[in-house]
Amino acid sequence: MRTVRLLIAFDGTRYEGWQSQRKEKTVQEVFEKVLERILKEKVHLTSSSRTDSGVHAEGLVAHFRTKNQLPDPKIRAALNFYLPKDIVVRAAKTVPMGFHAQFGARSKLYRYSIRTGLVRPLFDAPYVFWYPNTLNVARMRQAARHLEGKHDFSAFRGPGNEDRSAVRTVKRLTIRKEGSLIQMEIEGDGFLRHMVRIIAGTLIDVGRKKLDPADLPKILASKDRSKAGRTAKSHGLTLVRVSY
Amino acid sequence: MRTVRLLIAFDGTRYEGWQSQRKEKTVQEVFEKVLERILKEKVHLTSSSRTDSGVHAEGLVAHFRTKNQLPDPKIRAALNFYLPKDIVVRAAKTVPMGFHAQFGARSKLYRYSIRTGLVRPLFDAPYVFWYPNTLNVARMRQAARHLEGKHDFSAFRGPGNEDRSAVRTVKRLTIRKEGSLIQMEIEGDGFLRHMVRIIAGTLIDVGRKKLDPADLPKILASKDRSKAGRTAKSHGLTLVRVSY
Repeated sequence: MRTVRLLIAFDGTRYEGWQSQRKEKTVQEVFEKVLERILKEKVHLTSSSRTDSGVHAEGLVAHFRTKNQLPDPKIRAALNFYLPKDIVVRAAKTVPMGFHAQFGARSKLYRYSIRTGLVRPLFDAPYVFWYPNTLNVARMRQAARHLEGKHDFSAFRGPGNEDRSAVRTVKRLTIRKEGSLIQMEIEGDGFLRHMVRIIAGTLIDVGRKKLDPADLPKILASKDRSKAGRTAKSHGLTLVRVSY
Repeated sequence: MRTVRLLIAFDGTRYEGWQSQRKEKTVQEVFEKVLERILKEKVHLTSSSRTDSGVHAEGLVAHFRTKNQLPDPKIRAALNFYLPKDIVVRAAKTVPMGFHAQFGARSKLYRYSIRTGLVRPLFDAPYVFWYPNTLNVARMRQAARHLEGKHDFSAFRGPGNEDRSAVRTVKRLTIRKEGSLIQMEIEGDGFLRHMVRIIAGTLIDVGRKKLDPADLPKILASKDRSKAGRTAKSHGLTLVRVSY
């Protein structure tokens, strides 16, 4: 028996996220079918993250256990051969048995991408949220600073979240601008359901002057979801990296 | 009567190029239908370039003449409203009557993008040629230097070209590398049919040591198409900019 760690990228457009209780197609499901074909045994794939429907990943981590002794490079090659075009395995590596993709994760980095301006996005359209106007990035950066650190993020929690505590630590929340592209990067020890998208939606509201940067501490203190901005669309969100 | 200049971007995946004698869908055709709808008159759209089937554009220039007095920003907005998702108008501007998108063009800049490495491309897959190995970029740069300047490019001319002279001036041919992405940028006063793709294919052969940089002057002198590399796939090619 051995544990194999996978570094996975996927375009989430066609998927109902990593896993789902519903009948839609999930990334996990597609993977487990291909793995069974390659390894000639049923395997369960455990992921670092349950991404929402439509969210993309550049560096999701997952692991599975197998008796099969197929060398790591062959596992990667076979997976990439059989997986659909919108999923790719960047690396496959046999790791110590104790490795756990979900429980071992120390921090995760997400990126939310926004294109501003009157002209709709083209080449990166599936991966950016289009805001057809300008956003004040200086204001968004001021607001972001209030969210860094350890806070109770109840006001930024989506419905149906099972986690008991809403306390999370945001290690870094930065906003980059390059031409019409605005990218919010957020790194934390873990995120509540929809938390990154609600933060993105709230910062967009600050950027378009519907909210003030000074409102952020009040929103956090309220623990009231209705005080924060709306949940930004999922297709602008990408899981960039998971650290162990 | 006035002349309107358009700056156009499109994802060429679904199109048989800008124009075509055959029955496949072309970008020009899609445009002229939408323009007729907006301007309530038939217009002919003249393009800076006849791009090949599958080639993309970030900055193709086209012009048309119309009696309609719809303001420029409304022309752009209406076009972007009606055009399919894979075509976008970045700018629409009324210009002096004498402007001609094709004959006025002084130079064009194309980019050919290559992803190297064993893992197939994902997010930029429609816009890059995947070479599943390494390429020696230093050799490619040496070879590129031989193609800069004024030459007879008969050896780099595809079939069915109507132009009488094969003499063209390549103002600049550079190769950038960033991780697994290699981008060849070529600027010239004009290009023969398939010329950019044959140059890309030839430089790839140099990068994988099938050809030597010193072979390039000989290939040029031969004026023999069979001496150059193969025509690189169209989906890696993008028309970046046209200068007037």
